[in-house]
Amino acid sequence: MTNNITGFYEELVAHGLIVPSGLEGAFGRGEVFEDVLDRFNALITRVSKEDPAEVYTFPPVIDRTILERVDYLDSFPQLVGCVHAFSGDSRAANVLSARVHAGEPWGDLMDQTAVSMNPAACYPLYPILQGTLPPKGRLVTMTNWVYRHEPSPEPTRMISFRVREFVRAGSPDDVVAWRDDWLQRGLEILLSLGLAAKSAVASDPFFGRAGKLLSEGQEAQKLKFEVLVPVISLEAPTAICSFNYHRDHFGQVFGIRTHSGEVAHTACLGFGLERVVMALFKTHGFEPIAWPQNVRSRLWP
Amino acid sequence: MTNNITGFYEELVAHGLIVPSGLEGAFGRGEVFEDVLDRFNALITRVSKEDPAEVYTFPPVIDRTILERVDYLDSFPQLVGCVHAFSGDSRAANVLSARVHAGEPWGDLMDQTAVSMNPAACYPLYPILQGTLPPKGRLVTMTNWVYRHEPSPEPTRMISFRVREFVRAGSPDDVVAWRDDWLQRGLEILLSLGLAAKSAVASDPFFGRAGKLLSEGQEAQKLKFEVLVPVISLEAPTAICSFNYHRDHFGQVFGIRTHSGEVAHTACLGFGLERVVMALFKTHGFEPIAWPQNVRSRLWP
Repeated sequence: MTNNITGFYEELVAHGLIVPSGLEGAFGRGEVFEDVLDRFNALITRVSKEDPAEVYTFPPVIDRTILERVDYLDSFPQLVGCVHAFSGDSRAANVLSARVHAGEPWGDLMDQTAVSMNPAACYPLYPILQGTLPPKGRLVTMTNWVYRHEPSPEPTRMISFRVREFVRAGSPDDVVAWRDDWLQRGLEILLSLGLAAKSAVASDPFFGRAGKLLSEGQEAQKLKFEVLVPVISLEAPTAICSFNYHRDHFGQVFGIRTHSGEVAHTACLGFGLERVVMALFKTHGFEPIAWPQNVRSRLWP
Repeated sequence: MTNNITGFYEELVAHGLIVPSGLEGAFGRGEVFEDVLDRFNALITRVSKEDPAEVYTFPPVIDRTILERVDYLDSFPQLVGCVHAFSGDSRAANVLSARVHAGEPWGDLMDQTAVSMNPAACYPLYPILQGTLPPKGRLVTMTNWVYRHEPSPEPTRMISFRVREFVRAGSPDDVVAWRDDWLQRGLEILLSLGLAAKSAVASDPFFGRAGKLLSEGQEAQKLKFEVLVPVISLEAPTAICSFNYHRDHFGQVFGIRTHSGEVAHTACLGFGLERVVMALFKTHGFEPIAWPQNVRSRLWP
């Protein structure tokens, strides 16, 4: 296998694992790719079946005011995707049609709506946690499509992808203990699949020059960890699982309180499902039937 | 159970089947709702397992030029959702931030991108079918999230939902025969679940006054059928499965040819998965454990 960007993309296409869609970062997924993805997600469900997690599924779109309230437009304006729509009459529709058929831009004929793409699997959940948590807090799991506006020919850098997420809300001690426990569990799950996984302190791509300071602060305080596996290159391994400790950020914004009345803390972890699948193909080859038996037995139990 | 709009929505919420998200038509799905949805989708897979269908999964977003090429902006401008994004520098980001924090509109600071929401599960497929089909044509199945910008408090009228789709491409005779066969199969599947399903000739909500003529022509030519089940009201049952015969529309636009060199015809059918689930809850009650045994045995085989 090759270690260059277009090489790996083309190999995934040649093996029918993905199919180009005309958009960078939003290819179609073939049957075998999707089967491995579902099986990995099912493995996570099996491993966590004793955890008392509530299960939700959210659409790929989100209430725009959630992004406004959590300062997403300050931190990551370059990644947001807003849904704009047409609210004109027949006359305006004729203008729109004429522009489309003339090959002219027509985005200015659309208006912003209440809808944005969901940039993080956990965001739709926080408003729902509003109020007082039960004594031991809450644990929720979800598999949601998320959107980041960073089109790229690099196959692991998608604009639209799925994340299997867990969110823990509760007291600071409970939340940090949960995060530390899952850092170990997440690493073990990925190691058990024969992936050369390593955990590391990480930071988010905050926008601009001020963003650099935010990233440095996040690293210094060890608020974000990632589990990395080589997919595109050995030197810059790909994050396939990430852990974020938000302290009281979402608790403050959405009025989430612990049973004893303090502002709740939250943390989340997410497996980037397509990235896990790509890491498996990169590591074990493009034919799952030929993968090592100990890996197969985890996914085809 | 009640037959009014907000009544059914509130019952779904009260039973934990869905959870409000702040957006009309984009609620969260609870564990039981999602389990029934997955099980219905698996039933479709079992029923069709002898069909030689290729399987794909596409993201909820689509190349905007596909919508332009198929005249979607002429037919349904009111339903389109376009993804706009921010491409400004630090100065522009400061303006954006100030607007957000002042509670002022900021949509004009976003630019249209190459990305739109996908309005129909089958659209991402047609460009991929370009070229000459094998002798018997192609059959493809997909489960995709689709978007229609028609927010409503009516729970079956969603902006973001999933469709289990089949697409047939080939000669006119093969395509029509396949459509007719599935009209019967689709109806039988839904009847076997105890749903009061009926098929009917139908039309799409084409925009404006000219659109009314298009709808009438579509009905006169019997290009669209739906399977309807009462969910919100007996008088206006809800379409939970729809069948569209496109004749050579997509074949022309995307250069799809039959093995003998003619422009290929296409047809598709789609089960609106959330609507099927709601029809089941409406018909059999909010506790799947108490559903009739013959219905349960189909979904919990």
